[in-house]
Amino acid sequence: MPQIIGHNYIGGARSAAGKITVRSHDATTGEALPYAFMQATNEEVDAAAQAAAAAYPTFRTLSAIRRAEFLEAIATQLEALDDDFIALVTRETALPNGRILGERTRTSSQMRLFAQVLRRGDFYAARIDRALPERQPLPRADLRQYRIGVGPVAVFGASNFPLAFSTAGGDTAAALAAGCPVVFKAHSGHMATAELVADAIIRAAEQTDMPKGVFNMIYGSGVGETLVKHPAIQAVGFTGSLKGGRALCDMAAARAQPIPVFAEMSSINPVLVLPEALQVRGEKIASELAASVVLGCGQFCTNPGLVIGIRSPAFSAFTQSLSAVMAGQPAQTMLNFGTLDSYANGVQALHAHPNITHLAGRDQQGTQAQPQLFKADVSLLLNGDPLLQEEVFGPATVLVEVADTAELQRALQHLHGQLTATLIAEADDLQNHPGLLPLLEQKVGRVLFNGYPTGVEVCDAMVHGGPYPATSDARGTSVGSLAIERFLRPVCYQNCPDALLPDPLKNANPLGIARLVDGSSQPAPL
Amino acid sequence: MPQIIGHNYIGGARSAAGKITVRSHDATTGEALPYAFMQATNEEVDAAAQAAAAAYPTFRTLSAIRRAEFLEAIATQLEALDDDFIALVTRETALPNGRILGERTRTSSQMRLFAQVLRRGDFYAARIDRALPERQPLPRADLRQYRIGVGPVAVFGASNFPLAFSTAGGDTAAALAAGCPVVFKAHSGHMATAELVADAIIRAAEQTDMPKGVFNMIYGSGVGETLVKHPAIQAVGFTGSLKGGRALCDMAAARAQPIPVFAEMSSINPVLVLPEALQVRGEKIASELAASVVLGCGQFCTNPGLVIGIRSPAFSAFTQSLSAVMAGQPAQTMLNFGTLDSYANGVQALHAHPNITHLAGRDQQGTQAQPQLFKADVSLLLNGDPLLQEEVFGPATVLVEVADTAELQRALQHLHGQLTATLIAEADDLQNHPGLLPLLEQKVGRVLFNGYPTGVEVCDAMVHGGPYPATSDARGTSVGSLAIERFLRPVCYQNCPDALLPDPLKNANPLGIARLVDGSSQPAPL
Repeated sequence: MPQIIGHNYIGGARSAAGKITVRSHDATTGEALPYAFMQATNEEVDAAAQAAAAAYPTFRTLSAIRRAEFLEAIATQLEALDDDFIALVTRETALPNGRILGERTRTSSQMRLFAQVLRRGDFYAARIDRALPERQPLPRADLRQYRIGVGPVAVFGASNFPLAFSTAGGDTAAALAAGCPVVFKAHSGHMATAELVADAIIRAAEQTDMPKGVFNMIYGSGVGETLVKHPAIQAVGFTGSLKGGRALCDMAAARAQPIPVFAEMSSINPVLVLPEALQVRGEKIASELAASVVLGCGQFCTNPGLVIGIRSPAFSAFTQSLSAVMAGQPAQTMLNFGTLDSYANGVQALHAHPNITHLAGRDQQGTQAQPQLFKADVSLLLNGDPLLQEEVFGPATVLVEVADTAELQRALQHLHGQLTATLIAEADDLQNHPGLLPLLEQKVGRVLFNGYPTGVEVCDAMVHGGPYPATSDARGTSVGSLAIERFLRPVCYQNCPDALLPDPLKNANPLGIARLVDGSSQPAPL
Repeated sequence: MPQIIGHNYIGGARSAAGKITVRSHDATTGEALPYAFMQATNEEVDAAAQAAAAAYPTFRTLSAIRRAEFLEAIATQLEALDDDFIALVTRETALPNGRILGERTRTSSQMRLFAQVLRRGDFYAARIDRALPERQPLPRADLRQYRIGVGPVAVFGASNFPLAFSTAGGDTAAALAAGCPVVFKAHSGHMATAELVADAIIRAAEQTDMPKGVFNMIYGSGVGETLVKHPAIQAVGFTGSLKGGRALCDMAAARAQPIPVFAEMSSINPVLVLPEALQVRGEKIASELAASVVLGCGQFCTNPGLVIGIRSPAFSAFTQSLSAVMAGQPAQTMLNFGTLDSYANGVQALHAHPNITHLAGRDQQGTQAQPQLFKADVSLLLNGDPLLQEEVFGPATVLVEVADTAELQRALQHLHGQLTATLIAEADDLQNHPGLLPLLEQKVGRVLFNGYPTGVEVCDAMVHGGPYPATSDARGTSVGSLAIERFLRPVCYQNCPDALLPDPLKNANPLGIARLVDGSSQPAPL
C-alpha cells in the first residue's frame, strides 16, 4: 500500500503539531481505513497561510513558462500514479475503477490546458496606450496594463470528484496558473487520496524548483473557517453544498478585508423536452435521460434534477417510458454514508409533499441509493416552492407537466440560477418556442441542445458557473480555462521605464503575445 | 434657468408619489437652491428596479452597435448642455467653470470610449471550441462562449465628480455598454445637476429608441438601501467613502441572493520621493507635489495623502521646500459643508496625534479648506496606526521620513490597498531600490513613475481600482474601458444550431470580431 502519514503540508514540509486525528472510510462498508490524519491546529492553519504568502512574491513573478512547466510536471506525476492509488480512490469513494481512471486523465489534461493558456499569454490581457505628448489640452502619459495573481488562494475540494475538483483539481490548477499559491483543505471523504495527490504536487514543485509554500494542504474539520478568515488569504474556491458555500461567502464578506469566494453550490439543471422531439424520439430521450440521471449515482453538479414538458399524448407516453426505464435502474453505492443520509432525506421530502407523486423507484433503504422518479404539480414552480428548487444530490429527478408554452415561460421565470439548462428539441420545436432561449440565458451558465448536462468538457469555451445559487458569483467558471480569471487582477503602469516593465508589456513584446495597443487589437506576431 | 421639477425617473416617466422633499444647496454659501426633489418612496424604488428589470431582456439583446449609438447620443446630449447648466454645476459643487467644462468633456469622451469598445467587440470575449465527433474515448460537443450583461445595475454617484462619476459617469457608461439597465441614486450634493444630466440621457434614449426603463433615477436619503436590497438588482457601482461603500457591500452580501458591489472607497496614494530625484530636482518636486495635493481642493480619489522619503540632507531640504510651498497655498471652497466638517475633523485628528507634527498650513476655520502639511513618525506606519491609513479628503498630506531602504520596505509592507503609488525617482534610484516596484504592485492598482496621481486618463489601459480598502474588489476598475467587465458574465452554448447562436458566435463571424477558436487566437478579419 502507498505510504500515508497523515501530516499537514506546510511550506514544503510535513507538520503534525495537533492531537486530534481524523479517519477516512471505505465508502462501501463504512469501515475506517488504517490511516490517521492529524487535524491542523490554528497555528498550523496560520503557518500554511503564511507559507503561501511567503511563496507569493516569488511565485507570481515567475515567467508563465516556468509556471506552465510546473503544471505539466503535476500532470505527469498524476499520470504516473499506480494501480494501488486507483484502488485507494475507489475504496474511499465507491466510484468505479473506470471512472477514476477517466477522472485522472481529466485532471492531468486540465493541468495541461492551463499550461497552454500560460504559454499562449492571453490571460495577461495586455493593454498598451502609448504616450501622446502633443495631445491638447493635456498630453497623455504612457499607460500599460496586465494582470497578476491576487495572492494566496484557499481551495476546498468536492466530495464527488476526488481528483478533478479536489487537491489537484480545477480550482488548484486555475490558482497556480494565475500565480497564486494554494492552501488546500482536504475533503474528509477522501483524505488518503488527497495525500497521494499532494505528494505528486510536491514532487512536481521540487522538480521544477518552485518556492516552498506554493502548495499547502491541511486536514481536519473546522479548519476551513480559520483558513478563510486568515488575512493572508485573498480568494476562495469551493465546490459543495449551498449551505457550506454560503457559510464561506458570509465569513469572507465579514472579514476586515472582504475577499471573493467562488463557490459552485447547487443546481437542478432543468431539461426541457419539447413536443416534436418527444413525438419523434420519446423513448430514446427517456432512456438517455435516465442514463444521465443515474450516471455516477447521480452525484454530478450537473445532474438533471428537473424535467419539464408540455401536456400532450407524447409527453404522457414519455412519462411512462421514463418511469419504466427509471424503475429498472439498479441501486448504487454513494460517496459516503453522510451523502446517502442526505439523499434519503431528500427523497423522503419529495414523498411527503402533497403535490408531488412518486412515479418510479424502490423504497429508499439499506446502504445504497435507489434511483427515483417523481412528478410535481407545476404550481410548485409557479408559487416558488423551495422544495423543487433544492438539489437532491443523487439519482433522482422530478417531472413537471405544464399546460402550454405560456405556462412553460412562467414556470421558467421562477427558476433560480442554474449551472445548465437543456433543450431537447427538433428544429420545429425551437421555431415554435422562440422565447425559451433568451429566458434560459438569463438563468444559467450553459445552455445545451439535444444533449445531457452530465459531462463537462474541460476547454476554453466551457462555462461551469451561473447565477446564484448555482454559484456565488455568476461572473466566473470553475471548469475550463476561463477559470483563471477569477484569481487575476489588473495592474497599470504609468510612464514606467521599458526595462522595468513586465515582459508582457515591454515595447519589444518579447513574449510575442496578442495585445491591445492604442485601442486596436494586435495579434500575436507569427 | 433650466427647468427642474425634482420628480423621480421611472421607466421613462416622472414620478412624485412621496411627500418628503430634499433640497440642493449652493456649495459656497450653503444656501438652499430653489428646487425641491421628491424623495422616492419604497414603492417608487421598487418600480424603478422593476422598470430596469423589464428593460433588461430587450436592452441586453440589442446589437452592440445599437448600444454604441445610444452612448454616442448621450455624449452628444451632454456636449449640447448650455452655459446655464455649467453655471448650475459650479453653484452646486463650488468647482470652477474650467474644471466643469473639462469634466463634461471627459464624461462624453467616456461614453464614446465605451461606444468604441462596443464596436470593437472584444468585450464579448468570444470563444469557440468546435465539435470533435471522432475524438476518443468520447467525442467533443461544439461549445461556444461569450459574455452578456448581468442584469439591472444600481449606481451611486460621487460627490467629487458631479459629471464623470455621477449620473452619466463611468459606472453608468460601463453598465449601459454591458447591456445592463441602470437605476441611479442621485447624490444629495448635486441633485439639480443630476436632473439635467438624466434629462440628457432620457433624450438620447428616446432618440435611439431604447426600451423605457433603460435608465432610471431616484432622489432622497435612505433610498439606496432599499435599492441595493431589491431582488431585481444584480450588481452595484459606488464611488464614495469607506464607511458608505462597506455598508453597501455588507447589505449586498447579506441578500438572499448576494450580488457583487464595486465600490471605490479610500486611498491615501503614497508618493515615494527617492534620494537621487530629490538631489537633482527637489524644489521642482515640492512645487509639483503641492499642486497635486491642492488640485481641486484635494477632492480627488487619487489625492497624494502620504509622501515617504529616506532621511538625508536632500529630504530635509525637500521638506522645507514643500512646507514653504504648502504654506503659500490659498484656501478653497469644498464641495459642501459636510465635506468641510469632515476635513476639519481629519485635520484636527492629525494635530492631536502625539507623533505627528504640523509643518505648514493656516488654522482650519471658516468656510474654506486650508491646505495642510504634517509630518508623521515612521512608527505610525510600522505599528499600523489606523490614522495614517485613513484618507483625509481635502488638501492635506503627511510626510514620513524613513531611516533607510530596509525601513522603507517595512513601512510599505504595512500599507493597506491603494488606488495608486508613485515613484519619484531617477534611473539610479530605481536601480538602487529594486524591491520597491514588486512590493508596490501587490498594494495598488496603478504605479506611476515621475508623475502625480491626480489626473486619471480614461483609456483602455487605465486601472482605477486596487486592493481593499481602495476598492471592494481589486479585480475591477471604475475608470477606463475594462470597467465594462464588472457587469458581464459568460454564457456557454453546447451544440446550438448556428441560426440560434448570438452573432458573435456564429460560424460566419458576421460581426467580424477577434475570437479564440480551438485554442488559437483568431484576429478580427480585415
